Amino acid sequence: MTAAATEGERRRRGRPGYDLEAVLQAAVAVFNERGYDGASMEDLSKRLGIAKSAIYHHVSGKEELLRMALDRALDGWFEAAERAASLDAPAIVRLEELIRGTVAVLETRLPYVTLLLRVRGNTPVERAALDRRRSFDRLVARLVEEAERDGDVRADVDPKVTARLLSGLVNSLTEWYRPGSRPAGSPPLADALCATAFDGLRVRR
Amino acid sequence: MTAAATEGERRRRGRPGYDLEAVLQAAVAVFNERGYDGASMEDLSKRLGIAKSAIYHHVSGKEELLRMALDRALDGWFEAAERAASLDAPAIVRLEELIRGTVAVLETRLPYVTLLLRVRGNTPVERAALDRRRSFDRLVARLVEEAERDGDVRADVDPKVTARLLSGLVNSLTEWYRPGSRPAGSPPLADALCATAFDGLRVRR
Repeated sequence: MTAAATEGERRRRGRPGYDLEAVLQAAVAVFNERGYDGASMEDLSKRLGIAKSAIYHHVSGKEELLRMALDRALDGWFEAAERAASLDAPAIVRLEELIRGTVAVLETRLPYVTLLLRVRGNTPVERAALDRRRSFDRLVARLVEEAERDGDVRADVDPKVTARLLSGLVNSLTEWYRPGSRPAGSPPLADALCATAFDGLRVRR
Repeated sequence: MTAAATEGERRRRGRPGYDLEAVLQAAVAVFNERGYDGASMEDLSKRLGIAKSAIYHHVSGKEELLRMALDRALDGWFEAAERAASLDAPAIVRLEELIRGTVAVLETRLPYVTLLLRVRGNTPVERAALDRRRSFDRLVARLVEEAERDGDVRADVDPKVTARLLSGLVNSLTEWYRPGSRPAGSPPLADALCATAFDGLRVRR
């Protein structure tokens, strides 16, 4: 940027890093690339091309950024759970709706979910995120149990195992799903996943 | 160990680290804990309580240990693929047999599979492992395609997506399965997984 650039030019060039959203996006990318422990505010400042002081204008530091990033994934999950719970429908329908909701969160907030799934609980912020994650898992397990009591979910699989398989199936998408990587017109990923998990791959005759 | 300890006592105390198998087991544990890049032969020597020279008696170094560890998982997968391929049965049966085989590999070689799933391709050994992993994924995808041509697998899910969902489901077990952690008498994990993936969770009426 030359000294002659006007304020208007600066804005049009859209130099990133001047709002909290841009800082958070860059932070989650840096955390995923280097690992949270290995990432520094210096790395983030280089990525954004702005001074560290400009970052501290928005947040108190690395840990606050981690908390915000993890909450973005977790809030998405819990919002999906609330939407599913609000349905006046049997548990099996609410369960499938919840699974579809978590796929949607993964598709729209992939870096945040990726970061969350790597958390191992080394800091208070990470432990708080793990606690929320466990609450969410329990919520899924309770829905599976309810659907099993209704006779809608097969009883030969332990509800806790079922809940883990469902979450594992959704979370495994982070290994290969990339936004924009699927051919145009592909059926929604949530359809493929729910067809597999709820109705099974085998054709019935 | 006191100077007075006899050779017999030494053997009974079973001090680890004296055969290649023990070195490899310790190496995969150290790699999983610290990450391959962060792990040193010094860490391994401390873990085993033996001198580095005793380790170099068995292997040329860290990279050879990585190759051996990754091959232990990959060899297991390909052995399972060979067993499945040798069955005189429709593709859907061979596919389910292969999936059961990969679950068994995960159950019996968990640390090796965990290490393999974390490989990102930073070294020639890692890239070779990724190549073998991709060959294996293609093999699963071809079996799914064959089963779909037979009319045995639902056609509304892209075979490549199906193959990825199946692998993702199996691999997600590394997140929570621990040997010995399931209550005695629990049905085999492979049964729960195959019931879910092949027949679906939903009870049919």
